[in-house]
Amino acid sequence: MKVYLDNSATTPLNPYVLEAMLPFYTEKFGNAASIHSFGREANRAVSDAREIIAECINSRPSEIYFTSGGTESDNWALKGAVSVSKNKNKHIITTLIEHPAILNTCAELEKQNVKVTYLKPSKEGIINIKNLSESITEDTILSTIMFANNEIGTIQPIKEAAAICRDFGVLFHTDAVQAMDSQKIDVKDLGVDMLSMSAHKFHGPKGIGVLFLKTGSRLGKLINGGEQERGLRAGTTPTPLIVGMAKALEISNRDREINNERILRLRNRFIDMVLSEIPYAYLNGCRDSRLPNNANFSFAFIEGESILMRLDLAGIAVSSGSACASGSLEASHVILSLGVKEELAHSTIRFSLGVDTTEQQMDYVFNVLKKTVDDLRKMSPLYDYEKGIGSYV
Amino acid sequence: MKVYLDNSATTPLNPYVLEAMLPFYTEKFGNAASIHSFGREANRAVSDAREIIAECINSRPSEIYFTSGGTESDNWALKGAVSVSKNKNKHIITTLIEHPAILNTCAELEKQNVKVTYLKPSKEGIINIKNLSESITEDTILSTIMFANNEIGTIQPIKEAAAICRDFGVLFHTDAVQAMDSQKIDVKDLGVDMLSMSAHKFHGPKGIGVLFLKTGSRLGKLINGGEQERGLRAGTTPTPLIVGMAKALEISNRDREINNERILRLRNRFIDMVLSEIPYAYLNGCRDSRLPNNANFSFAFIEGESILMRLDLAGIAVSSGSACASGSLEASHVILSLGVKEELAHSTIRFSLGVDTTEQQMDYVFNVLKKTVDDLRKMSPLYDYEKGIGSYV
Repeated sequence: MKVYLDNSATTPLNPYVLEAMLPFYTEKFGNAASIHSFGREANRAVSDAREIIAECINSRPSEIYFTSGGTESDNWALKGAVSVSKNKNKHIITTLIEHPAILNTCAELEKQNVKVTYLKPSKEGIINIKNLSESITEDTILSTIMFANNEIGTIQPIKEAAAICRDFGVLFHTDAVQAMDSQKIDVKDLGVDMLSMSAHKFHGPKGIGVLFLKTGSRLGKLINGGEQERGLRAGTTPTPLIVGMAKALEISNRDREINNERILRLRNRFIDMVLSEIPYAYLNGCRDSRLPNNANFSFAFIEGESILMRLDLAGIAVSSGSACASGSLEASHVILSLGVKEELAHSTIRFSLGVDTTEQQMDYVFNVLKKTVDDLRKMSPLYDYEKGIGSYV
Repeated sequence: MKVYLDNSATTPLNPYVLEAMLPFYTEKFGNAASIHSFGREANRAVSDAREIIAECINSRPSEIYFTSGGTESDNWALKGAVSVSKNKNKHIITTLIEHPAILNTCAELEKQNVKVTYLKPSKEGIINIKNLSESITEDTILSTIMFANNEIGTIQPIKEAAAICRDFGVLFHTDAVQAMDSQKIDVKDLGVDMLSMSAHKFHGPKGIGVLFLKTGSRLGKLINGGEQERGLRAGTTPTPLIVGMAKALEISNRDREINNERILRLRNRFIDMVLSEIPYAYLNGCRDSRLPNNANFSFAFIEGESILMRLDLAGIAVSSGSACASGSLEASHVILSLGVKEELAHSTIRFSLGVDTTEQQMDYVFNVLKKTVDDLRKMSPLYDYEKGIGSYV
């Protein structure tokens, strides 16, 4: 049995999305910037896509800027806000649990003498909004807080954070890459100035994303060149990807509630089974304010990577940490920021369910997981199998 | 009859390229950074693609960095060279006829106190290599000269330019976006440190490009985040696009000579017909050191846009200026830099032939063009039709 439980890393392309893209990979191949009929045909498709995406998030079409993905959107939002600011001292507020696209961009900006405050989440993985308002100084130009965490799925109080920033005249950006598929995003209601998304996280193609930029917000360019995207993001418009992204978001919006309900039921059942039947298993992040498809556990006394490998051999795809940090031997910065001890952080596995996940699959995964954890603990020097206790929990 | 003569703006996707991409839009959808089997399958495909591209340009696979396209590659090369340089005063040498991806990036860098020298081409559209060596100062950190011009197709003496820069210890970058399809590129033989390319100019997908970066060259990052592309370019790897790019370049390399020969014959025949049978038609750029598919004319006394519109109505797709500058009412900076008067620069049309172009198509285009030019001149206040002469040529 093949079971894909790594939908937070990437999602399979929806077949209807591919169908929508294909004409732009065959006869409708024009450059959307060309004036002739081939160009106008492509340009129309891009305009339509921009309108669809705008409608999905309740923005204006002119507030939608296509990028190569969430990482570029994040880089652009942060670096663009810094480069356009005339403040002598520049200060940014973010959190310890952001995606590397934000954290490494902040690290880069720190080298350029931008001051960055990193808010620490609660044990449950939620940012305390009071810490945000207390951190704002007269130099603060931007706050960026992710909508939902990519590892533990916790959902942050974005509307409240945006309101605080608005009161202080501070730009507010949210990386909504992990949230777009399951959360209804209404940029007007949220009150955000900027929002990043990436198509491949909601069954669209890889290599395309959006930065929502509220009318009136000023932003320096990340990529200079031609006059594409109203002069703010240069580069030949990738029509097939844009068409695919719009179709994917349209479908995601349409099917959100029914998918969420089903996935949430499967996910909760799985969490209950793991917590009740596998000893020394801990759920990372709170259970309520959390993406419906995310379950992230630490299994004391064993390595997450070892579990991952065993599950992989059984046809089950999961993640230890996140795909973006894979290959790294360091414990997850997200799990550590919750106050979890380093050894336990190393024993972490993320299960991220998808639209195709079934109850049978989850039963299979649970059984393989239980046996795997049991087997690995028998070999673990940290685990006193006879007594059933470990030395460091 | 539909005739697409705007292959310099973008090329139709090769059907074999789409065929190679499709499995990665269906069952092989994994994130190439994931450790499990879905991820390894994608990762293998990306590694294979990197090897194919490296072989095509005679580089090492580890010197190939995937980007979202030529514009990003150009931005990265220039901004990355500037950000990593420890020189107090930084100087870049480029040319007046570069693509906006270079020129607007240089303009941005000038705002950051980087000094930029713009070399002027000859009337024929070729850079004099002597001007390059004379412009190098102790502050020069980079020279960037395009391989072939996107509007007039003139091919620059890249090997000679790279050799001069090497002698002076100056980094050398070339924007080879327009050249990749018809020119055999061997980065070792050329001796360049960096080279930009874009897949959709050689029948690959839009939204994917490469920056070749020679081993040992240091470059700051443009996009921070995850550890993709050996830590130098973050963002989820767009496997289908990468696979498509490699397949497209492989096919382009394989069929280059036979395509060039056929296209060159059609192009030369077309130039001869236009110059001999349409009065006051001028070929922009030299005829010899030129891409085989490019013909760029000025037709005195009339507007290029008017010609374009009429040809479009007849099903013929051409360009006035370039797609990247479209919508602009300014005369082409490339044509002006050749010393062509502004009025004549406004009367410019680019014909860029492709692998599917036929002799019948070119005959049709010639006949429509001749009649169009004739008709428009009859209406032109600048053209004394009775005498057959104009007032400003």
